[in-house]
Formats: sequence, C-alpha cells, structure tokens
Amino acid sequence: MFGLMQDWPLTVDRIIDHGATWDGDRPVVARGNDGSVERSDYAAIRSRARRLSAALAGLGIQPGDRVATMAWNNIRHLESWFAIMGMGAVCHTLNPRLFADQLRYIIGHAADRAILVDPCFQNLLADILSGMAWDGIVVVFGNEHEVDRDALPGATSFETLIASAPESDARWGYFDERVACALCYTSGTTGNPKGVLYSHRSTVIHMLMTLQPDVFGMGINDVAMPIVPMYHANAWGMPLSTPAVGCKLVLPGAHLDGASLHELIESEGVTFSAAVPTVWQGLLHHLDMTGGRLTSLRRVIIGGAALPESLIRRLHEHGVEAVQGWGMTETSPIGTHGKLTPAIKELPFEQQLPQRLKQGRPPFGIELKIVDDAGARLPQDGVTPGRLHVRGPTVAAAYLGGADGDILDDEGFFDTGDVATIDVHGYMAIVDRAKDVIKSGGEWISSIEIENIASGYPKIAHCAVIGVPHPRWDERPLLVAELHPGESASDAELLGLLEGRIAKWWMPDAVALVDAMPLGATGKIDKKALRARFATPHIESERILPHGA
Amino acid sequence: MFGLMQDWPLTVDRIIDHGATWDGDRPVVARGNDGSVERSDYAAIRSRARRLSAALAGLGIQPGDRVATMAWNNIRHLESWFAIMGMGAVCHTLNPRLFADQLRYIIGHAADRAILVDPCFQNLLADILSGMAWDGIVVVFGNEHEVDRDALPGATSFETLIASAPESDARWGYFDERVACALCYTSGTTGNPKGVLYSHRSTVIHMLMTLQPDVFGMGINDVAMPIVPMYHANAWGMPLSTPAVGCKLVLPGAHLDGASLHELIESEGVTFSAAVPTVWQGLLHHLDMTGGRLTSLRRVIIGGAALPESLIRRLHEHGVEAVQGWGMTETSPIGTHGKLTPAIKELPFEQQLPQRLKQGRPPFGIELKIVDDAGARLPQDGVTPGRLHVRGPTVAAAYLGGADGDILDDEGFFDTGDVATIDVHGYMAIVDRAKDVIKSGGEWISSIEIENIASGYPKIAHCAVIGVPHPRWDERPLLVAELHPGESASDAELLGLLEGRIAKWWMPDAVALVDAMPLGATGKIDKKALRARFATPHIESERILPHGA
Repeated sequence: MFGLMQDWPLTVDRIIDHGATWDGDRPVVARGNDGSVERSDYAAIRSRARRLSAALAGLGIQPGDRVATMAWNNIRHLESWFAIMGMGAVCHTLNPRLFADQLRYIIGHAADRAILVDPCFQNLLADILSGMAWDGIVVVFGNEHEVDRDALPGATSFETLIASAPESDARWGYFDERVACALCYTSGTTGNPKGVLYSHRSTVIHMLMTLQPDVFGMGINDVAMPIVPMYHANAWGMPLSTPAVGCKLVLPGAHLDGASLHELIESEGVTFSAAVPTVWQGLLHHLDMTGGRLTSLRRVIIGGAALPESLIRRLHEHGVEAVQGWGMTETSPIGTHGKLTPAIKELPFEQQLPQRLKQGRPPFGIELKIVDDAGARLPQDGVTPGRLHVRGPTVAAAYLGGADGDILDDEGFFDTGDVATIDVHGYMAIVDRAKDVIKSGGEWISSIEIENIASGYPKIAHCAVIGVPHPRWDERPLLVAELHPGESASDAELLGLLEGRIAKWWMPDAVALVDAMPLGATGKIDKKALRARFATPHIESERILPHGA
Repeated sequence: MFGLMQDWPLTVDRIIDHGATWDGDRPVVARGNDGSVERSDYAAIRSRARRLSAALAGLGIQPGDRVATMAWNNIRHLESWFAIMGMGAVCHTLNPRLFADQLRYIIGHAADRAILVDPCFQNLLADILSGMAWDGIVVVFGNEHEVDRDALPGATSFETLIASAPESDARWGYFDERVACALCYTSGTTGNPKGVLYSHRSTVIHMLMTLQPDVFGMGINDVAMPIVPMYHANAWGMPLSTPAVGCKLVLPGAHLDGASLHELIESEGVTFSAAVPTVWQGLLHHLDMTGGRLTSLRRVIIGGAALPESLIRRLHEHGVEAVQGWGMTETSPIGTHGKLTPAIKELPFEQQLPQRLKQGRPPFGIELKIVDDAGARLPQDGVTPGRLHVRGPTVAAAYLGGADGDILDDEGFFDTGDVATIDVHGYMAIVDRAKDVIKSGGEWISSIEIENIASGYPKIAHCAVIGVPHPRWDERPLLVAELHPGESASDAELLGLLEGRIAKWWMPDAVALVDAMPLGATGKIDKKALRARFATPHIESERILPHGA
C-alpha cells in the first residue's frame, strides 16, 4: 500500500527555483580574478542559468551529456552548475591542480562534450587539450574580450552565449530524481582517477542532511563562504545549501591567501565558512602579522585533513568555533561532523579537546561501521582500529564505468580506505589512510596522530609522518618537517615535542627537514611523493624499540 | 543517465535505528497518566518497538494493514509508532476528542485491523466499538492489571504482547520508500473526515525539512517537548525528528495544564517546544498566578491557530522566542515558518511584530501560490488575498479512498482552503479559512485579523469573529467573546479595542458574550457551532456602513 503524497522529485533545479522565488534579492558576492568584488543575487543567477541552459541546448548539449567546468568559486561557475544540472546534463568539475595527464584522462573517460573555463585557466586548458584528441565545445567565463583565441581558437564567450538565448527557451527540471547531476573524480594516489556520479536525489538529500543544526546549520541570517573549491567534492555542497536556505553567499574566487580572505570576511560579514586546515593556518598567520580580528565569523567547518589542536585553540581565541567534518568525494562529501554531545558539551573547553580532535559523528542518513580485514564488525571502544565502511543515500554505489568493480561489501557499505576508531560517545577518529598507516612489528602506528602533535609547534609550517622501510620492523616512522622561513630546529628538539605524548614505540626514528613539502592536487601533503623520496632504508638507528622491547 | 549512488530508501525504521545506534542512551521522558514521570531511551524504545513488530506480526498484522492508536504523547505510543511503521504497516492516529460517530466512521473507513489504546481511553473506545461492527485486535498500553476487561473483553496487554516476542523475530524495514507509514484524518467541519496517507518518503523528507535552523532547528543539545498531540498532525513530526538528531525528548502525556507543563519544562530542562496558542496561554496564566519563571525554554513553535500579538510579547518577556508555524494535516504538517529574514531581524522588536504575526515563509520543499477563484496567480503584495495552494513532496496528492476526488489543481498544487496574502518579504499571512471569511458587500473581511486584536485584551479569555446573515450586506461581522471568570465588559468597551485598528467597514456590528466558547475536536473554537447559534439575522444596527459609505 503506497502513500498518497505528491510526486515531487528531489532535483537540483528546485533548489535555485526556491532561492530565486523566496530570497531572490539576497546577495551573492564573489571576488573576481582581478581582485574586485562582483555582486549578483539568486534571482539573477537563476535567470542567467536558465538562459545558459537554453544556449547549451542550442549547441547540441543533451540531457545526460557531461559538461565540464574548470573554475574557481565565482558567480559564473555557480550559474553553470545550475544551468547544467537544471537541464539534466551532468556537471563535471575539473580540478585544475591535477597533472595535465590526469586531466586528459578524466576528460576522455567522462567523454565531456563541453568545458566551461575561467579566463585564468585558458592556457592550462589549451595545454591539456593540445595533448589529446578532443573536439568539444569550449566556453570562457567572461565577455568576448576575455576569450584568448590564440590559446583556445574555437572558444565561445560565456556572456555572448547567455545573450544569445531567451529564458523562455530554458531546459529546466521535470526529470527523474535518479538522473545524474554531477561528476567528480577522486584524485587517487594510485591508479587512474575514478569518477563519482551523483544523482539529483543524492545531492538534494545531502543538502538537507547538512542543513541540520549539528552539521552545517546554516540559516537565512548566515553569511556563508565556501572557501573549499567547487571542484573539490562540490565545495561540500554549500553552493546548493545556501540558496536552499536563502542566505547570503560569498565566493572567494582565486584569492585564498590570508589577507584576501580576511578582507572579504570582514567586508561582507561572513558568519560561517568551510575550508581545509591550511587555509585557516594562512588566515591566522595573516592575523598574527597584522593584528587583525574576526568580528563576524562565528563557526567554521574544517575538513579534508585532520584538524590540529593548535588550530582549534587559536580559532577559539578569535571567538570562532572550529567544528571538524569528515568525508570524501564518494560521500557527497559529508560523512561525520564534530558537534559536541550533551555529555561533552558540559565539560570545560580543555577537556572537550580530545573529542573535538576526532572527526565526529554521523548525521541521520550516514551509517558507519569499522571492520577487520575479513569484514567482521569491530568494537566501538575508541581504541580498536578498523577499516571504516559507510552506507547511505549520499554514498557512492559504484564508480563511473565500473572502475574498481564492485566497491560495496556484503551489507552494501562502501570501504572508505580509511582506518578509524569509534568511541563510546559515537565519535569516529581517523587513525590513518589505510595506505598511510605505518606497519611496525605487526602493529599499526597512526601517522596522523603524531602529525597532530608536531604541527602545533610554532616553528613548524608543515609536517608529515611516513613509514620508511626497515629491515627488522618492516616500517618505522620518519618525521618530515618544513620549518617556517628563517627557523631552525634540531632533531632532538622536534622529537622532544612527542616525548610522553605517544607510545614509545611510535616515536619516529629520525627527522627529515625539507625546504618545501610536496603538495598533491587538492592541497594536501603528498605522502606518496615523500615515501618515494625517503624510500631508502637509510635510518639505522634503533634507539627506540617497538613494543617497549 | 542515472547517478551511481547507493539505493537507501528513506524509511522511518532508519530514524529510530539511527537514534538507537548513535544516541541510544539519550533520555526519553514522559509523564504518565497518574502524573508520575517515566524514563526510557532510544535504544530501549527501538528494542521494544522491534519486539512489538514481531508480536503484531504474530497476531496476523501484515504490511499495509492499518493499526490505530488512541493515546497521549507517551513512551508506549512512541514505541507503537516505530513498531507499526517499522514493519511496513500503517499507523493510524485516532483523535480521542472527535465525536464517537466520527471515530466509528474513521475506524471503518480506514479498515483498522487493530487499535492500541491508552488505559484512560478504554471506556471511550468501548463506547465507540459498541456502536459498530468491528472485530479487530485491541491492545491496552499497560500491564495486565491495567486492562479493563469489563470494558474491552478481548483486549491484550501491551506489556504481555511485547514479552511474548523476541527481538530476533522483528519485522523491520527494507521496503519501498513510497510505502504508506501513517494515516491521519482531517477533522473537517463539513462532510466526513478525510484520510491523509503519508508515505515513508514524505515522512522522512518532512523530518529533514523541519530540522533546518530556520524551521524547528533542533540539535543534539536541545531538550524537545512536543505538546501538540501525536494524534494531531503527527505532533508536527517531532517524535521522529528527535531521534534523528539524538536529542532528549520529553512527552507531557495527558497533563497539558499550565502547572504540569511548567513543572516538566523546569525539571527536565526543556529548551524547545511546540503547541497551539491556548496551551501557551494556559502556561502563561499559571506563571502569572505563581510568579513562576522559564529558565531553560528558549524557543517555541506555535501553530494550529493564529498567534496573538500578546502571546509573542509575553513569551518574549519570559526570554522565549515564539516562532509561528503554519501547516495542516495535508502538509505533514509544516508549510511555513516565521523565522525572520535579515531585513526584518535588524529592526527593533516592536517593528518586527507585523512580520512575526504572519504565518511565515516556506522552507525548501514547499511551493506556495495564491490564486483567484479561476486559478490565476495573484500578486504577492501583502494586501491581495487569494486562495492558498501548496505543492511539495510532503503534501497530499489525494485522500484515502479518493474522498473529494481530484484535490490538485492543473499545476499539481493542493488547495488548502485558506485565504492568504503573501508579502514582498515572502511572508504568508492567513486571512481566514475560506469558509470563515466574512463576505460583506462583495468584499472580504478577515475574522482572524479582528480576533488577533481583540484577543490581546486582558479581560477576554477567548474570542471569535463570525459572519452573520445580513439582508443588505449578505454578511456582517459579530464579535463573540468569553470573558475571564468574574470579568464584565460593555459592548462599547470591547468594540473600542478595534477603533482605529481596522477599516471602519470591518467593525463588528455587535458583540455577543458567551459563558463558554464551543471548542472543536482539536481544541480550536468551533465557528461552525457559533454560526449556527447566531444564524438568525438579529443584528439590525447599521451604525457602520461597509466601504465607508
């Protein structure tokens, strides 16, 4: 017996329809590539998105076709998202920081029929396309004079395209909610990138899940700024959740340095934001240098990498609550959030820190479990690490084209590739990526836990702990550190940071100082590159014996 | 091209699964019929619900069968909801305040196969069943000794039933999200009651919609108390949204008087609640009498009837934000919420009041329009009234058994039967029920607007404005008032309240004082009864001429 409720598919076009109808004049503000600030609103964005949908249809784009974007967080990029998804095509966000060969692979694998590109990425795109056979449509986010036809001879101007199509010709909505709306490739460190194909349904459900007070908790009176790029796990869904609640949206464009972000936060009154830890470290460094303050910002969601204790403390001193989120491209991305439970909330701030440092608890719609290598569930006691598996309506069931084959376990859970613990309060803590965990004498050492301690030291700009081959213990940890310019530190000084704070057999055998930490395509430290660089088992010291031997 | 995300149906069993897994020990507190306070938690509730599902299956209840409940907001009622919905049967909430004949009609029309009843309603149920042919299963919420077998000879004890079935036999989840989960009849004032049949999908989407910060905005640190009965529009979904966020839940049972509610709010630390205006008036009256204070309550959602200005003010003085919500059984029920937009929020409290008195704005998932009698859209200018139509995944598409035929307009919107305006800020204001609006000289007079002014007068306990037949103007307004005990007031004194605050031609032609206002089954003033009582066009005064003539 079915219910008798209305058939109203959960599709993305309805999100901007809602924002434009009820909060049409709420500002959407973006920093342009030249540093100036552009202004629009949800009504104008919807209208232009609808015109763009008509124009794309006129160029032959059909529902289901993949249309790529390569752009910063800005207004035209947002308009493109709604145009592409609203017409039933698939918005494929390209990460411009990937290597050219990876991008060629991705564009080919996705069979992109068009690429919409920021003017600043025209040369990059020209370089990519010159190395492959591709005859799709190129649209440049700008006016005619911004199109670089030397680099991209056949390119069309975005504004010319929009001007060419009346809104009455819009292709808009009215399809099955299971239809694909977006495509994002994971920047795997091994093998080819794999495509996660989101549906309208999963995207709208994700939006609703994240709006809960304990997750993003945005309301109409917030001013929200997604710093995390729209090409990185959908900017954690914020470009969609903001029109859904009708709050002011601020987009930082290409200018992610501390000074630019601080200026935008203060001038636009940003109350809520989301970014990876390194962005906040850059902002705090700027505040330290200038004596600047944060007068409007109240809450930030931090994800993409573990949140160092020092960052929580320093944001707290600025009156900003730092809440950790965890997720991945395959989880849309929100998987857990670090909201404090009543039992933790009533503790003093210092005693809350161990929980705040964990990656948090799942919202309704996310099921988590930790399992051993055979798939058996492990105890949620806060100490037993296991492979983290996840299930829900916003979690991938397969990769595009069947890459990696069947990626779900017998219960339909996706294996995240993370190793984690879950404690009695329900807080999940990532111990390590399964591939980054250091296997020493048959036991696991968490690189992340050691990094979290070391990264709080003022002299250290970035640090990483990796496993290096060892003849007796298989692997032993190496602390790799990049100091702030002008600083110096001895091995003993740096290892001393860890004394008494980790098990003795976890103590790195040595320290390696580097001038510049290698960063991967999403701004994270590239441990694969570090492992390659330090692969030679040149550390023979055995001053620390595993297992307290 | 479909997305490649997991198939995870939005079903209600997953809500209590989530609550029990991640917040299993969060307290659920209820006042029993004897006034004592009972305690449980989400883990126990789920476990008992699963055993009940097994026991009901053992009694022959199949998926799709209707299983009725007639009970206050208490723990066994909550367990029944999850058991019935979790096994794929349909939870049919019976309103014990309806007339016996209406309940007989509803039980028969729904073809209920079982009725679960509070001990306090056993005689009521016996009386209902004695007047109809029905051979279903009766279960009494209590132990063996609480079953009144004189009244209900074949009844089973809830606790005996639960003890009879192991949890391993639970029938639980894994069905299509379009399956019906709940049934609630509207207490129409004309014709037979009509059944609204909710699906799991609509119920879960409604839960997610209401969790937004601008709607209910409950988080894990809230202590939530739905005072609105579970038999009245699903207690606005709060029995489901609380385990979804894992917050403490407080259920007031049968004790809805000011003293009992105040005691429960203070002793359990309630932060958030929902009820109709008369409940809050009772609570405030109790506080006035006792000098009591509200130390934990921060925010209340008020719906079911227009929110009088005096109530907003007095709750504000107690440090409680009163937010208006509007909805109906057919909208699950949340249709709009009164959260202030940025432009309104920055005004002083006094200047916010006109917006706070409106019924508010639709959350994402609700589409609203106002139309004329021909269905054409009317301007959203805040003054033009029109029939309010609504569309969305949580809105009824039809009544059970096809009552009233096709209830959607050409665009798929449901006609609410309300007359409303929508202003430039997006705030909808109910002008009147279409059937209560007073038609005078070809124009509409809003009974509600006049009532809102008069009801703020301290001497007035309840008031209603109705149209009475008039030979020249078709109808003219009559102000009907019930004064507080011991009070007296002249017609001129009462009409004087309205002077200068409404159009002259809206001024009631007369005042009628009544000893006790007739109340309908949901506690609202029964205007149909008032109209019948004052149907004789005995008011011949023409001191006020419509249209300023």
